[in-house]
Amino acid sequence: MKVYLAGPEVFLPDAREVLDRKIALTRAAGLEPVAPGDLEIPAALTKRQMGENIYRADERLMMSAGAIIANLTPFRGLHADAGTIFELGFMCGRGKPAFAYSNVTASHHARLLAHYGGQVETDAAGRARGPDGMLVEDFDMNENLMLDGGIMAAGGTWVTRDVPEDRRYLDLSAFEAVLAIATQRLRGG
Amino acid sequence: MKVYLAGPEVFLPDAREVLDRKIALTRAAGLEPVAPGDLEIPAALTKRQMGENIYRADERLMMSAGAIIANLTPFRGLHADAGTIFELGFMCGRGKPAFAYSNVTASHHARLLAHYGGQVETDAAGRARGPDGMLVEDFDMNENLMLDGGIMAAGGTWVTRDVPEDRRYLDLSAFEAVLAIATQRLRGG
Repeated sequence: MKVYLAGPEVFLPDAREVLDRKIALTRAAGLEPVAPGDLEIPAALTKRQMGENIYRADERLMMSAGAIIANLTPFRGLHADAGTIFELGFMCGRGKPAFAYSNVTASHHARLLAHYGGQVETDAAGRARGPDGMLVEDFDMNENLMLDGGIMAAGGTWVTRDVPEDRRYLDLSAFEAVLAIATQRLRGG
Repeated sequence: MKVYLAGPEVFLPDAREVLDRKIALTRAAGLEPVAPGDLEIPAALTKRQMGENIYRADERLMMSAGAIIANLTPFRGLHADAGTIFELGFMCGRGKPAFAYSNVTASHHARLLAHYGGQVETDAAGRARGPDGMLVEDFDMNENLMLDGGIMAAGGTWVTRDVPEDRRYLDLSAFEAVLAIATQRLRGG
């Protein structure tokens, strides 16, 4: 069973090293890892063409995989990496089992309150809103409800750990924990 | 042909009014709109259960749709709304045509530079990196390459407009422009 390893690791200075550790752990668990960077990207004449070539390679890898494990640690803001969220949606749309982890334990709602500096007020209809008038939703979830809901509907699960900022994109203990769960489910254990 | 109207409108104070305008425009174009909020959400005992019920309703609507038009205007940060990105990925995973618009014309790269306050330096390998060491990618795209790539691969297109902040989630001129393109393609024009 091939498993697509999605996450923001590609942006790290030591991207290859971290991806290789995840690949080795997945293989040791008895699953077959596929990850961005596995395929050679054809050369391109423009930046946009290069980006499209990378997309095509990643899509090919996703189409070859029977499940996804997504690193949904918040990245450059409130939410998980945008590319990783797309990939999670893509695999859920294909009806494949989806698993996730995050190295931040603060809930989506807690992060949203922090985003608004705590300036959240209740409107006339009793709904919490930020200073910009936007709804401050609270569904007791790790992420936007489409992400948590998609993982739930796909029969998957989340693992979260509180990892200090300097190790946030390097520590793999939450990955290892969800990998163990995924292995058991995917191999029918 | 049913078209799923994805976007952060559900968070607006006047969510219903804006969604109704999008629904009316889509219907006037000769397509059948489906949008979050179209289905009644079953009552729930917990916040989490409520979130899961909303997910199930939205997933049902997506499964009924033959295409998606996603509002990818940046929301609460650098990127489009996380739920909308998931939905775009979901529909691409189902192999459905995907169209998008944004009321911000600044490219993904320009927004990334602003995110880092312009503090981007070139590393020894010649790659641009932020002060956190993360790669500052530039693929001449509107969003993370998985989003632009997914839309391209699904045969869709983007329309972007520069809308002042106070009308950013209300103005529908970019929506109308991409709706016209989507209508022509989906109806085989």
